[in-house]
Amino acid sequence: MTTPPKADLVAKARSALQLNLPLTERILHSFLQNEVRKFGFSRVVLNLSGGIDSALSAFLAAGALGPENVLALLLPYRESNPDSLNDGYGVVEELGIPSKVIEITPLVDPYFAEFRDMDVKRRGNVIARTRMIVLYDHTVEFNGLPLGTSNKTELLLGYSTLHGDMASAVNPIGDLYKAQVRQLSRHLGVPEPIMAKPPSADLWPGQSDENELGFTYEDVDHVLYLLVDERYSPGELVAAGFDEEFVGYVTRMVQAMQYKRRPPIIAKLSQRTIERDFRYPRDWGR
Amino acid sequence: MTTPPKADLVAKARSALQLNLPLTERILHSFLQNEVRKFGFSRVVLNLSGGIDSALSAFLAAGALGPENVLALLLPYRESNPDSLNDGYGVVEELGIPSKVIEITPLVDPYFAEFRDMDVKRRGNVIARTRMIVLYDHTVEFNGLPLGTSNKTELLLGYSTLHGDMASAVNPIGDLYKAQVRQLSRHLGVPEPIMAKPPSADLWPGQSDENELGFTYEDVDHVLYLLVDERYSPGELVAAGFDEEFVGYVTRMVQAMQYKRRPPIIAKLSQRTIERDFRYPRDWGR
Repeated sequence: MTTPPKADLVAKARSALQLNLPLTERILHSFLQNEVRKFGFSRVVLNLSGGIDSALSAFLAAGALGPENVLALLLPYRESNPDSLNDGYGVVEELGIPSKVIEITPLVDPYFAEFRDMDVKRRGNVIARTRMIVLYDHTVEFNGLPLGTSNKTELLLGYSTLHGDMASAVNPIGDLYKAQVRQLSRHLGVPEPIMAKPPSADLWPGQSDENELGFTYEDVDHVLYLLVDERYSPGELVAAGFDEEFVGYVTRMVQAMQYKRRPPIIAKLSQRTIERDFRYPRDWGR
Repeated sequence: MTTPPKADLVAKARSALQLNLPLTERILHSFLQNEVRKFGFSRVVLNLSGGIDSALSAFLAAGALGPENVLALLLPYRESNPDSLNDGYGVVEELGIPSKVIEITPLVDPYFAEFRDMDVKRRGNVIARTRMIVLYDHTVEFNGLPLGTSNKTELLLGYSTLHGDMASAVNPIGDLYKAQVRQLSRHLGVPEPIMAKPPSADLWPGQSDENELGFTYEDVDHVLYLLVDERYSPGELVAAGFDEEFVGYVTRMVQAMQYKRRPPIIAKLSQRTIERDFRYPRDWGR
């Protein structure tokens, strides 16, 4: 079987990525209700960054669990774009969920002062992980689970911080590509300022995801969908007309960043090693 | 088949937990060499707490990779027991590995000042996670992997901090029960002050693991081994003469803390969901 030409593959990807929106909404509401309650909880806590991913997670959680059961944390850093806080507020007001603003500047600046030669990436990781600390600490006070806000595109590319924004107990949007996050966000009524602005992790001033990555989310979604979901090989995509360098880069990133999606590797010594042989869905001994 | 009486089961566990020490050392050296190099690295970074687990990981890494390739971070908090720092130093000197002392007090005290009613557990988690931030940040500078220091006993009981001391890329001791950590540490020459002191996470003054847990590591190692490795049911152990409350508690902890050993649960929507269907050892596309 020969691979169809690039234009056909792109059309195929675009059409496959079109969500059945009411169905997706229903599935994700049940997912959140079931998974949160299975753990014995009824509430969640999330970091609302002002971006579309966390906004969508908040909308889904409020719809599934009730607005009073979703605590939004807004955690600005001194260099954060003020729009991030405003756009986060917009979600809080639209949904009527409880929220808390905690300035993280005093928590990270002493570290930055000690290590002055850190580049923006290292600084970004420290900021993302400090927000994780505040999030997890507040799950205790609010008696809720930490809610995930990472989408499939960024998880596959490893374009997020391990033990930072990737840290959660349940993630409703981790199987949605960025394009699908946009569709579902529009369907659920995520405020327009969030829909309109270019994607950014806002970990340093002026950061833009697409500039930093060097390609558009649309292009990478298509290639990821064809590689991961349709199981085309990189060679087949190149033969079909996709840019060789781009396909190679995406393939390498998915491979190289796999460690962020897996628990630590434990040296095997016994018959029953954690995450190797001792590995049950969630019901050992029941 | 009837279950043997308690005394026989304890004798069985005790004998099964006896390591072949030279063989274990050899396996763990190869493990570290292979796993670190597979990732394209030759170095590791670890937090040296002054306790036996991180001391053992340091000894194993220095033996496997060479002392110059192991960076030890000593990260005292204002309330830490001064012995922790001294005992960590002892390991650094014994092994001749590079080290760095970074006081984390300025990083966590501003948070504690804002939330004054935090209990010791929440404070302990913030401290453990702050140490994770410093560790992961230093992996960039040293160009090494973060080395795990959690043993099997604490991983099964969930007696450690998720995204804190549990965070690592490779963990040489995660399949060793506490009793086995002690055997191997003695074999490798971990300094006597560390061997002699009672186990403590030192996350608050006077903390003792065994006091906090309410049982000894020896007792819990035996029950864990029989439940997990030998697959006895809790009922069989109780019928054999083990304390019902204790067995029940251990079983519940292993179940309830499973979430700490697993990646976040992602809502399934596509044919190939991360960690569900899209899940390879480490070689997708090769």
